Amino acid sequence: MIQKPSLPKGTRDFSPLEFSKRKYIIDTLSEQFRRFGFHCIETPSFENYETLMGKYGEEGDRLIFKILNSGDFLSKVPPQVYQKQNSKQLTPYICEKALRYDLTVPFARYVVQHQNDLVFPFKRYQIQPVWRADRPQKGRYREFYQCDADIVGSDSILQEIELIQLYDNVFEALGIQGATLRINHRKILGAFTEIIGQSDKLIDFTVALDKLDKIGKEKVIQEMIDKGINSDSIQRLDPIFSLTGSFEEKYTLLADFLSSSEQGKQALEQLSQIYDALKLMPLKAINLDLNITLARGLNYYTGAIFEIEPPQNIELGSLGGGGRYDNLTEIFGLKNMSGVGISFGLDRIYLVMEELNLFPEELIQSVDIMGINFGGLEVLQTLQVVNRLRQMGYNAELYPDTTKMKKQMTYADKKQIPWVLLIGEKEFKQGTFILKNMKTGDQNEYLQSDLETILPPK
Amino acid sequence: MIQKPSLPKGTRDFSPLEFSKRKYIIDTLSEQFRRFGFHCIETPSFENYETLMGKYGEEGDRLIFKILNSGDFLSKVPPQVYQKQNSKQLTPYICEKALRYDLTVPFARYVVQHQNDLVFPFKRYQIQPVWRADRPQKGRYREFYQCDADIVGSDSILQEIELIQLYDNVFEALGIQGATLRINHRKILGAFTEIIGQSDKLIDFTVALDKLDKIGKEKVIQEMIDKGINSDSIQRLDPIFSLTGSFEEKYTLLADFLSSSEQGKQALEQLSQIYDALKLMPLKAINLDLNITLARGLNYYTGAIFEIEPPQNIELGSLGGGGRYDNLTEIFGLKNMSGVGISFGLDRIYLVMEELNLFPEELIQSVDIMGINFGGLEVLQTLQVVNRLRQMGYNAELYPDTTKMKKQMTYADKKQIPWVLLIGEKEFKQGTFILKNMKTGDQNEYLQSDLETILPPK
Repeated sequence: MIQKPSLPKGTRDFSPLEFSKRKYIIDTLSEQFRRFGFHCIETPSFENYETLMGKYGEEGDRLIFKILNSGDFLSKVPPQVYQKQNSKQLTPYICEKALRYDLTVPFARYVVQHQNDLVFPFKRYQIQPVWRADRPQKGRYREFYQCDADIVGSDSILQEIELIQLYDNVFEALGIQGATLRINHRKILGAFTEIIGQSDKLIDFTVALDKLDKIGKEKVIQEMIDKGINSDSIQRLDPIFSLTGSFEEKYTLLADFLSSSEQGKQALEQLSQIYDALKLMPLKAINLDLNITLARGLNYYTGAIFEIEPPQNIELGSLGGGGRYDNLTEIFGLKNMSGVGISFGLDRIYLVMEELNLFPEELIQSVDIMGINFGGLEVLQTLQVVNRLRQMGYNAELYPDTTKMKKQMTYADKKQIPWVLLIGEKEFKQGTFILKNMKTGDQNEYLQSDLETILPPK
Repeated sequence: MIQKPSLPKGTRDFSPLEFSKRKYIIDTLSEQFRRFGFHCIETPSFENYETLMGKYGEEGDRLIFKILNSGDFLSKVPPQVYQKQNSKQLTPYICEKALRYDLTVPFARYVVQHQNDLVFPFKRYQIQPVWRADRPQKGRYREFYQCDADIVGSDSILQEIELIQLYDNVFEALGIQGATLRINHRKILGAFTEIIGQSDKLIDFTVALDKLDKIGKEKVIQEMIDKGINSDSIQRLDPIFSLTGSFEEKYTLLADFLSSSEQGKQALEQLSQIYDALKLMPLKAINLDLNITLARGLNYYTGAIFEIEPPQNIELGSLGGGGRYDNLTEIFGLKNMSGVGISFGLDRIYLVMEELNLFPEELIQSVDIMGINFGGLEVLQTLQVVNRLRQMGYNAELYPDTTKMKKQMTYADKKQIPWVLLIGEKEFKQGTFILKNMKTGDQNEYLQSDLETILPPK
């Protein structure tokens, strides 16, 4: 029976060219992470079911891919559970493992599990795929890479400053100019609700405020009212809805507005430390924008919140984000471990690089030279020369079959191989080879013994 | 509720040092694969259930990790199936996806699916994790990497020759001397059973023969008799049980023994082509051994069969293997695509490298220099110098907190950071910095403006 080959929804194959481009981004990120003193770890693709469940809210639990237990998995299901025939209730009895949903929870688990072997503050980066049973759409996949850098064990604001510089260095290294780093602070959001006397509505408030860019002021206010926030209070927030201008202008207005809130002042103090440091060490590729609507999973962050937007002419969601969290490892039993981290979205950065044509030319061409196959003793001599080229650092291949020259040349052409090497009967006898430039068609004959002097070592 | 962190059976975290060592092997492999003209592809971690099931035999089917469907997965189960409460029968109704079991079947699926975009012969390599629900034991994990190089679309014996050279180059590049490449040919095994008139018993015969090294001649013969192979016939095979000596000596004996078998002669013709080519281009790191007991999943290979054994003093299973298969893509509808490939086992190569102490020293140390944190304006100046070091290519970090010097120095010591940079009050005022060698304790003061001339760019 013949099966028509296909892929599961939301997953992708990567061709050699796509792989090279993705690797280029990953290598650039890794290099910058290491420059900043981060170390790479890897965690398993699946974790214990309980490690992941309950960490991402109800929606997250639903989107986690569970792995069916091996063997006679039904033997562990209590009869009364099986009888109910309820998918959700049955799942924990037939699944002990699940595919990781992000890199943050596995990292927290890693830190707690290996705490005695780690030197704190611990700076780690991690670049691995994650899986989510989300509905696939343009730019959203069920398997995708996350690229995270986090520091745990220090609450110094220098970490926030360095992470912004890391963003800047990565985008500079990739050649992406003009991305915007939006910054906010959890305590600014807290101060807003404090000032209007609605601290208990913090989550509803920020979920609505987060939509200001998308749905506009009127609808945000309506949503707040719907959630039971007093409309008189909301009016007191009018200045923040229309907050515009430079970082400094917004800052000045906020300083006035939040002057009565202790947590507001704390947040502003941190933001000014960041701002002053960056004035001393100006950003090279990205812009900084104070954005007081930014929330990004509020129940998670406890300090600064980051999100990085693509350059203005590109229609795409954020290219990454992050922030400070004080309680990440607590669920696994390790308290007082302040952490701060940022993440880069590989797929979206890839799209930006494509659109701005920023991938280096040489990624396309990965074979430097191909030997033509004339069969007989000639081909073995060709293979010897090809092997010497490999020793010199060239990516070289030998056409495997003794077929017509035209077919072999077409193969080299299609693969965009720039040089072809020929050792036919005449060259074999003379100990020479012909080197043909596939672009210009020029060709020259050289002595095989001169190979290492004719071609520069790579 | 606090959860004690743990990992699923058979999975591992990789620490920064372990990651670096694994990456060193992977990078070495990738470089050699590219030198030989192979291109890297990647396929998704999970495939459709039907793509994988039935490809690895009954045992394989059992060891494949299945992914539970999302949402109300029980709604798709017919009542009569649910009633039976049979794990095996229920599985296909609640799982549409499964984690890949190897890289070969996904590669075959890839080739067929993308056949119109590929240039044949297609040379691909692939380095990705695979998952098997095997019982974990020393050196065997449930998540592990495979590193495969295959060529499809050519039946030239040059491919076998080049793949042996690739093995040789990889082991040379890793510094592993003395591994043995065992080689056999499917048609030699076929010829044996043909000669003794038991062609229908090919699989039983080779499964038993494959155990010769482990259980010895007597037990192998007993197993063959148990499987119904005529004991008189087996006696005719006596010469092959005691086949010893050099490649050439074994070859001569086989040539005599198999002279009446057409497939035997074909196999020997190919082996002699391989042997002659390697005499012309001698192997540098590995030895070649003709081993007529080698079978390695016979129902899969159709030509040459390879397996690579670690150097003699190391007790470990094979470090990789491979061979030629003529029908790989047929199940997905693409006929006449001869393929040949080899695989490297990352975990075992890692163990060999550890045992022989072959990992380069510099993998251990990944941060070159650390800035001491004196707080105040001093720390911002330190960060500026640290950033200049990063621009120069150094991996540099700033100690995040303004704590006691001793604590900061201990951190640098524990992380084996070789250099520490100090800008205290005095240095701040003078525009200098102190550079301290952590090994010798020596320290010198330099002008910050001289940084780029004092330290060589990396």
